[in-house]
Amino acid sequence: MAENRQVLLARRPNGVPVMEDFAFATGPIPEPREGEVLLRHLLLSIDPAIRGWMADKPSYLPPIALGAPVRSGTLSQVVASRDPHVEVGSIVQALGAWEEYSAVPAQAVMGRVERLDGIPLEAHLSVLGGTGLTAYFGLLEVGRPREGETVLVSAAAGGVGSIVGQIAKIRGCRVVGIAGGEEKCRWIVDELGFDAAIDYKREDVKAALSAAAPKGVDVYFDSVGGEILEIALTRLRNRGRVVLCGAISQIHDDELPPGPRSYVHLLAKRGRMEGFVTLDYAARYDEARAELAAWIRAGKLVHRDELAHGLEHAPRHFLRLFDGSHRGKLMVKLAEPEESR
Amino acid sequence: MAENRQVLLARRPNGVPVMEDFAFATGPIPEPREGEVLLRHLLLSIDPAIRGWMADKPSYLPPIALGAPVRSGTLSQVVASRDPHVEVGSIVQALGAWEEYSAVPAQAVMGRVERLDGIPLEAHLSVLGGTGLTAYFGLLEVGRPREGETVLVSAAAGGVGSIVGQIAKIRGCRVVGIAGGEEKCRWIVDELGFDAAIDYKREDVKAALSAAAPKGVDVYFDSVGGEILEIALTRLRNRGRVVLCGAISQIHDDELPPGPRSYVHLLAKRGRMEGFVTLDYAARYDEARAELAAWIRAGKLVHRDELAHGLEHAPRHFLRLFDGSHRGKLMVKLAEPEESR
Repeated sequence: MAENRQVLLARRPNGVPVMEDFAFATGPIPEPREGEVLLRHLLLSIDPAIRGWMADKPSYLPPIALGAPVRSGTLSQVVASRDPHVEVGSIVQALGAWEEYSAVPAQAVMGRVERLDGIPLEAHLSVLGGTGLTAYFGLLEVGRPREGETVLVSAAAGGVGSIVGQIAKIRGCRVVGIAGGEEKCRWIVDELGFDAAIDYKREDVKAALSAAAPKGVDVYFDSVGGEILEIALTRLRNRGRVVLCGAISQIHDDELPPGPRSYVHLLAKRGRMEGFVTLDYAARYDEARAELAAWIRAGKLVHRDELAHGLEHAPRHFLRLFDGSHRGKLMVKLAEPEESR
Repeated sequence: MAENRQVLLARRPNGVPVMEDFAFATGPIPEPREGEVLLRHLLLSIDPAIRGWMADKPSYLPPIALGAPVRSGTLSQVVASRDPHVEVGSIVQALGAWEEYSAVPAQAVMGRVERLDGIPLEAHLSVLGGTGLTAYFGLLEVGRPREGETVLVSAAAGGVGSIVGQIAKIRGCRVVGIAGGEEKCRWIVDELGFDAAIDYKREDVKAALSAAAPKGVDVYFDSVGGEILEIALTRLRNRGRVVLCGAISQIHDDELPPGPRSYVHLLAKRGRMEGFVTLDYAARYDEARAELAAWIRAGKLVHRDELAHGLEHAPRHFLRLFDGSHRGKLMVKLAEPEESR
């Protein structure tokens, strides 16, 4: 009974991850040590960042060890606590792993979730979780769009991109999204309120961007890198900003591909290209969540979550990040919360 | 007698400029129209930016027209004025051309030069002119170095780079310069006070940089682009800044070469890469000049100017920008100022 099912990193992916990169295991439920808490995970957040952590490269977090459970953002319930600040029974956002239970240092717990009327639990891991917070701080703090400016968003039908575009609309910007496929393009315009969509699978992105943003781009929110970043830089307006959120087009390459030759446009355009890490804004998460929740309740911010049910589906659901088959945010549901004891 | 000798852009350079790209001519001294002033040029500023203006590409200024005199920063004396704000006899910095006289709109006059005791006239076009102002605003406003940080400077023996490094030292930074050749490397360390120099012609820049800046680079002032930008990005510290001042390594390429693949380091490092145009800071030139002059008088800021004498030497002196043979700032002296009338 006291078992802890796990999904382990069996080997480092070579290019696009495949099922064989993962292994299933069952271990004991860990005992939290002094300063640690024991979490029972309710939801796993399926994010491109996980692919980065799988590589054997130093980054803002160390690589996931081979044979260790796959690191993941989680929404979790505290079942035991050896830290005075974390209360048993509370529901928290955390940096956990693909397993049923994790013992983590209290600092891996990133805030208690106060459930809000009319907002489903999973929203706390998507639009009110890392995904929404990444969109919020990346766009508003790094991109700093002003009313009337043009904002370009790549991976616009993805978890982060779909929220970035809507926040930019709320802030009075003209918003152009780039997505793959007609269905996604229709969705971001018809349901999310983007002003225009570019289908990178069927259209000449450069020509389509000139048509959709004839005066150029003030803020480009980049989650893909590669050819689209190359094009966006050539269309940057004076004092344009490129928010570097990810580079999924090249996340699988062992050798980095050539960078954007058009970076030189930053010179004469006084442009700025800047990376960020959402964790750095942890002290302001509550403020951001309150604003995001208010937008949801006012009907200004739509979120779409695609849930798989059961830990065993985590690898397969993760692979969907790379096949272009999803819209919005991917999560895996493991359990319902128990009533506070 | 009323002749105006000129150096014209005869054709657009194909790669590195050659003498045949220029032509010599003699025309009449122009008449200033309403709102214009007639300048007699005393000194021409020889800058890499001129190579950019020679290309048929839109930028922050239009390309130099074929057959027109080569656009250039100048130190000039006003010989006639049809603008109430510009006084005849005054010595000014301006955007003029490679000719003895230019009639320019009053807004091309970028400030009257107040000659300072103990500071030679040419310093007003180098360390107190566009070169010093580019170093000052690029480093302090875009790079924003803090005491104790490590600043890396490429083209460190050039006009801008040699001043950037010294300002960074004044601000309490550790400064590493990259230059070509032993003599330049000795000069920036022994005479300018850089902490370390890397000779890119003889050393493995990556290994030498790891040794000279073991904790990494907080601010990289980039005038070269290419391979050195590639390496610098991989050594950026958290919240590191790359100041994009130029890309002389690729200024001659018609097709842009691949960009820095290591730009992805900006993501996890929360790095910022930003371009700037010195002209944007025109309202603060006086403030900057006062501080630069104070540093010169206090012996904290050394400048080195290489002057050629006579308009006919402008093309040849300009070509020296690209053959690595100079240290400090290149200028061409055309005339001495006349006493105010």
